Order: sequence, then C-alpha cells, then structure tokens
Amino acid sequence: MPTARGAASAATPRRRPGRPAGKSETRQQILDAARTEFGSKGYDRSTIRSVAAAAEVDPALVHHYFRTKSDLFAAAMELPVNPRVLVPAIIGPGVDDLGERLVRTFLGVWDTPGARERLVGLIRSAVTVDEAAQMMREFLTHVLLGPVSEAIGRPDARLRVTLVGAQLVGLALMRYVLELEPLASADTDDIVERLAPHVQRLLTD
Amino acid sequence: MPTARGAASAATPRRRPGRPAGKSETRQQILDAARTEFGSKGYDRSTIRSVAAAAEVDPALVHHYFRTKSDLFAAAMELPVNPRVLVPAIIGPGVDDLGERLVRTFLGVWDTPGARERLVGLIRSAVTVDEAAQMMREFLTHVLLGPVSEAIGRPDARLRVTLVGAQLVGLALMRYVLELEPLASADTDDIVERLAPHVQRLLTD
Repeated sequence: MPTARGAASAATPRRRPGRPAGKSETRQQILDAARTEFGSKGYDRSTIRSVAAAAEVDPALVHHYFRTKSDLFAAAMELPVNPRVLVPAIIGPGVDDLGERLVRTFLGVWDTPGARERLVGLIRSAVTVDEAAQMMREFLTHVLLGPVSEAIGRPDARLRVTLVGAQLVGLALMRYVLELEPLASADTDDIVERLAPHVQRLLTD
Repeated sequence: MPTARGAASAATPRRRPGRPAGKSETRQQILDAARTEFGSKGYDRSTIRSVAAAAEVDPALVHHYFRTKSDLFAAAMELPVNPRVLVPAIIGPGVDDLGERLVRTFLGVWDTPGARERLVGLIRSAVTVDEAAQMMREFLTHVLLGPVSEAIGRPDARLRVTLVGAQLVGLALMRYVLELEPLASADTDDIVERLAPHVQRLLTD
C-alpha cells in the first residue's frame, strides 16, 4: 500500500481525489464503516465482510488490520481494553479465585488513565440509545458472558454471570458516574475484599 | 383558594390574565419551580422556601400541598414510589431479613405498571446530565442511604449500603435497560433467592 497520508505534508492533510488511500486512511475508513455497521445492525449481524463492503475495501484488508470481528469492534468503539485478550487472563487460572480476579481486573480497567471517560461514554450511549444497547448487549454476550459461563460449567452459569455483571456495572455506575460516597472514595483493596467472596459465591456456590 | 380551574369549562382551559390561579394551577406552578430548583441547585441546597420563592407563592402553601421536601421531590420527579414511605416499611421489621426485603421491594417497584419507563428515564438523566446526577446522589443519600445505614448501625454501614445499592442499580440496568439474557427473563423469585443471601451478607456479615 502506498502511504499517501504519511508522504503528504502537514499543509496538505487531505489527499487529492483519485489518489489511492494511504494505510492510516484506509484503516480509518474501515473503523468509520465498522462504527456505522455495528451501530445500525448490532454486533451479531455485522460481519468482517459487511464492514468491508461498507468501507469499499477487500475483506482480506479488514482481516489484515483487525484479525477478528471482536478486535475490530474493540478498535472501532475505542474500548480501553480488548476483552478477547482480557477474558482468557481472568478465566485461565481456573474458577477458584475467579471472584477476586473479576473484581480486581474490573476496577483496574476503570482506573487505567483515560479509560474512565471512554467507559462512561459507552454506558451513556447504551443507556440512552436503543441501538447502542443492542450492540453492547450482543458484544458482551459474545465475548464475556459466553466464555466466563463456559468456565463455570453449570446449567445456570449464564444467569450467575449476568448477576455478577450487574454487581460490577452497578459498582461502576455508583462509584465513577454517580460518585456516591463513601463508595466513590473507597480504597480499591477494600472493595475487592468485600465483593470478591460474594462474587465468588454468586458464581460457584 | 378559589378553584378557578375547577370552575372553568372545558372550552376555556386557560385562565384570563389577572384572575387568581386555581388550585391545580398553583400546584403545577410549584412542581415546575421545584423541578427547576432541584435540577439547578441539587437536592441539598434547595428548600421549601426557595421553591416557594421561585414559584412566587407562600412557603406555607408548598408545605400544605407537599408536606416535606422529599415528598415535593418525589412529586416533582414523578417517582413511581415515595422513598420516605417505602424505606420505613423495609427497615421497620429489623435487619434479619433486610436483604430479602430490599431485593424483593426493589424488583416490585420496577415491575409496577408504568414505573419502569419513569425509572429508566431517571437513570438516563442521572447518567447523562451532571446536574441530574448530583440531584439524585443527594436525594438517595438523604432518604435511602442515611436511614438504611442507621438501621445497620455499624461504622462501615454506609459503604456496605452503597455496595448493595450498586448491586440493585446494576440489576435494573442489566435486566430492564440493557435487557441482557437470561437475566431479563428470569423469574423474580429466582433472582430474590439468589441475591437476598448475598445482599444480607454485604450488609451484616
């Protein structure tokens, strides 16, 4: 691929019509198309192929830049972490300390510099726009609820995991969005210590 | 008070300028002023007196219609339940089954016809508008967090109650707003049975 954007001087940031798109331009084009696709069709019904068609590029190029649909989603939604990478790290060591790993990792993500604004933005969209809710619901079901439930390996695992999800999402809402005291200023270790045994029981008791 | 609105025929719904305001008109005037006051100043800094001044009526009249500030808030925000009435019913019987009563009452309120739309609207405002978040935070602290923490009677009661609040708010978000399955279709009794012991432990263990 020619790197038109890279070669252009700062004085001419927009490429001339007809000139082939540069690497970062193509990537941006794919991300824009992905946001529109996921937003209008939801996560389940969007595909690498449909995003490629909307971006007017070859599907192989989308694969080349983003590997999987969930990676493409994470990039398009500017998720501060990629759940496809995070989830195996949480469930890998087994179910014994799953409660503590879930709570600690969740708080760790929210405390990552820059992550909070983005996550609050995602919650705001999901709460106010039906299409955003559907998109997040399908994505969470696919990359989080499914794998964690499988690790639990019980018939009611999915209900258990959604109840834990409720505890964690509510924690974020009260601590970081509503900023209700004393939860907003509570020490991370204190919260982990209080919630981990409870989350563990909800999952495996 | 003359009942101008009541006396007026359906054909002349708007009173003539200079004619004294009717009962329901005055009430509406107070509610409009209260919404503006609470929304701009928050719950703590608004008073019956400041709402009366904004509505250009006598404070005694606000007292007459709404008794207390929290009742006025409940009416102005069209809360589907009045927490000042609900909270004593929850904590009155003591702390032994507090977990179950909290979860069951919370789900009962959400399942009341008409309540859900209003509650979702309140969550939406609180998540998207800073002033609404402040208002809800102060109101919840005053009418819910305070009294329930006092009933628990431990030094860390407030942190315990906010963690339970996080579980309940997260439950509402996942079940009624994001509608994540299988939680969205789960039986109320099943949810109560799973969450009540956990909520109880968070409160009193």
